[in-house]
Amino acid sequence: MQFELTREYIDKLKKIIDEKNEAEAISLMGELHPADIAEIYDELNTEEAKFLYLLLDGDTAAGVLAELEEDDRERFLKVLPIEVIARQFMGKMDSDDAADIIGGMSDEWQEEILSHIADIEQAGDIVDLLHYDDDTAGGLMAKEMVIVNENWTVLTCLRELSRQAEDIDEIYYVYVVDDDGILRGTISLKIMILSPTSAKISNIYQPDVMSVHTDEPDEEVARIMEKYDLVAIPVIDSIGRLMGRITIDDVVDVIRDEAEKDYQMASGLTEDVESNDSVWIQTRARLPWLLIGLAGGLVSAFVISTHEKSLNIDPAVAFFIPLITAMGGNVGVQSAAIIVQGLASNSLGFESVFSRLLRELTGAFVNGVICSGLVFLVNSFIGRSYDLTISVSIALFSVIIFASIFGTLIPLTLHKMKIDPALATGPFVTTLNDMVGLFIYLSIGAYFLGLV
Amino acid sequence: MQFELTREYIDKLKKIIDEKNEAEAISLMGELHPADIAEIYDELNTEEAKFLYLLLDGDTAAGVLAELEEDDRERFLKVLPIEVIARQFMGKMDSDDAADIIGGMSDEWQEEILSHIADIEQAGDIVDLLHYDDDTAGGLMAKEMVIVNENWTVLTCLRELSRQAEDIDEIYYVYVVDDDGILRGTISLKIMILSPTSAKISNIYQPDVMSVHTDEPDEEVARIMEKYDLVAIPVIDSIGRLMGRITIDDVVDVIRDEAEKDYQMASGLTEDVESNDSVWIQTRARLPWLLIGLAGGLVSAFVISTHEKSLNIDPAVAFFIPLITAMGGNVGVQSAAIIVQGLASNSLGFESVFSRLLRELTGAFVNGVICSGLVFLVNSFIGRSYDLTISVSIALFSVIIFASIFGTLIPLTLHKMKIDPALATGPFVTTLNDMVGLFIYLSIGAYFLGLV
Repeated sequence: MQFELTREYIDKLKKIIDEKNEAEAISLMGELHPADIAEIYDELNTEEAKFLYLLLDGDTAAGVLAELEEDDRERFLKVLPIEVIARQFMGKMDSDDAADIIGGMSDEWQEEILSHIADIEQAGDIVDLLHYDDDTAGGLMAKEMVIVNENWTVLTCLRELSRQAEDIDEIYYVYVVDDDGILRGTISLKIMILSPTSAKISNIYQPDVMSVHTDEPDEEVARIMEKYDLVAIPVIDSIGRLMGRITIDDVVDVIRDEAEKDYQMASGLTEDVESNDSVWIQTRARLPWLLIGLAGGLVSAFVISTHEKSLNIDPAVAFFIPLITAMGGNVGVQSAAIIVQGLASNSLGFESVFSRLLRELTGAFVNGVICSGLVFLVNSFIGRSYDLTISVSIALFSVIIFASIFGTLIPLTLHKMKIDPALATGPFVTTLNDMVGLFIYLSIGAYFLGLV
Repeated sequence: MQFELTREYIDKLKKIIDEKNEAEAISLMGELHPADIAEIYDELNTEEAKFLYLLLDGDTAAGVLAELEEDDRERFLKVLPIEVIARQFMGKMDSDDAADIIGGMSDEWQEEILSHIADIEQAGDIVDLLHYDDDTAGGLMAKEMVIVNENWTVLTCLRELSRQAEDIDEIYYVYVVDDDGILRGTISLKIMILSPTSAKISNIYQPDVMSVHTDEPDEEVARIMEKYDLVAIPVIDSIGRLMGRITIDDVVDVIRDEAEKDYQMASGLTEDVESNDSVWIQTRARLPWLLIGLAGGLVSAFVISTHEKSLNIDPAVAFFIPLITAMGGNVGVQSAAIIVQGLASNSLGFESVFSRLLRELTGAFVNGVICSGLVFLVNSFIGRSYDLTISVSIALFSVIIFASIFGTLIPLTLHKMKIDPALATGPFVTTLNDMVGLFIYLSIGAYFLGLV
């Protein structure tokens, strides 16, 4: 049932476009879903994409436009006549998708497009949605929904439903409002079908309904919908009037973006980069972290230079520098990642920082004993000097303990300061642990070499 | 509308439980959603939780059981009488949730529970679902759905609907099958309401329906539902018979788990650990990565020891070891993370490995020139020896280039070998880059010191 994009398919399509064979192109794209067509567009240049786009019917074209990635879309919108975009595509789109697309463009472009949308109600909905921040419930919601008045009968509702339902693909909930437009509850199609047509809505609707305010952050909307397994959630303004509804498919994107953001931070990328982004965008996302690492490396160089005497006495002290810094970095990132995930999933509960730290330290103690024990055995076996063997093992143990303390406390502190705690799993903590680890190791080394 | 769990609430509840005040406990929990009650349970001990649990009505109790985290649930099920679990709770649960819970228990316990479920149809559904692997479409699906025959009229359907719909919370789609149970398509409630009651289903249903096979991997199901913005998807067997349906709320968990798995790998955690897991579970998840880091550190020690002569001539060679290893690690993880994300979101397209590598190298060149240039300036300014200054800068540049090559090729290779490419963003690649970086740096250093 699903479409699988292949190299051969793209080559065939490109050839057909090259020949300007419209009939063949339409038949090859056949009954593809807009999401599939959007995927094909990623592989075409703008001219090829434009040729195909003008062959699509209005609904499909609107769907494709909504599915395209933002930078592809911008590039693409520039080559299409503005009346075509407005009349044929924007008018057929859900208000939230249309607002997202228009919101990304310049002010003049926005006005131009809006003036060309024939359906005044649709244009009004889009203008309303443009007021909300992208990362709030208002920015996620769409205006398309089925609304009934609590004073109506089931019969009136069913009639109204057939009128309203034309513009809406799927009905998940029917929202019940009072005369002032205040959200009172929901009524499912199931209940409506199973009730007598003369029943009054106010007697059969479900009054308990989860809702969010227009200014609720999108991550909080995602958390609520995920926790309560909701497929759609109504959005209300500050006096409780129903303003729109958010469906789960829009929230899935928020959930994925949030999880990916943590991963990117942990991997040392400051912004959302795609594998096919330009060298310039990728460099901009990567360089800041590298400069932090660089600064850390220069400080580490200074720390080691203050122990030049130790190196003169026993150059073997230098052998274990990478081991100490790597272990400090690894342990710190592990500890921080556990906290960051706990914060993200809201599962830290009410355990105090102290008892959390205690548990972390117990684990660090176990890992520390195992790791430093192993290093002790290996170094004894190889026949390194006793002083060096003992100082490496003690230093390793101490570094593991310290790194797990930092790894636990830094994300908790960042979170308290309203800074994204995921910052703590990136090169930031690794670099800090490198320096602290080195300092501990060289100090212990100097002690055993009789320098202090 | 949403419930906010507070320290005060828990304290009050614990006090009420302590006094065995049933009426007060019921009124305090009020009309809470099962997901909220499950959250409260996380903060209670088993005895307290049991006291509250026996006060809940059947539907709520079933919901709470489905919402609990797996280890909490197991602990909890052990203290409840088996008949109570089977009769009161399992019978009220969706088949997929019931199968998930039963699937996690021992064989004897499974048989015992199943023998106590009064509803034979429900027990049969659960047994059917137990056959499927957890991480396939069959393992995700539930049996509860509304099915109509293509030969029926709308009137027959509406009657059948009121019969079937009793067991189902929400109807997203009504599935249409033929006499052999083969999935033919879907029909929306909207269409059914808007059509005359005498219309035949075969004339009005929607024949194009996305479906998945029972053995489709769960990550693929998630990808399809996300791509096509589906709220539910039917599951068919190898001859096309309708076996069940998967709803988006179950898939949201898969999407989150998948994204979290990458993050955990990148942070050096081998399994899904929660911040409140026991020390033992956390140690088991962390130690393997630490041992890899340890082995890498010992190899690095060996690499440096082969260059002991350089250290004897100029101990300052050791100062820059952390800088070189840290930068190699950071660059490698960045490159790998970009590839891993591209693979996960299926957005790599058909770009060849060669052109991808070329783009990566261009970026590495820019970052390399900036970073090694900066280090050159700092070292010249501080007045380090010219030999050292030039070897650190050349080595840093080479390490950035090599790390970006490894970072790009390793995840692509792992993916080809059907190994999770996210492995490449963890301590594995960092450790490899540490060693390669050291080797390059010390070799260049030895050359400039006139040792080779």
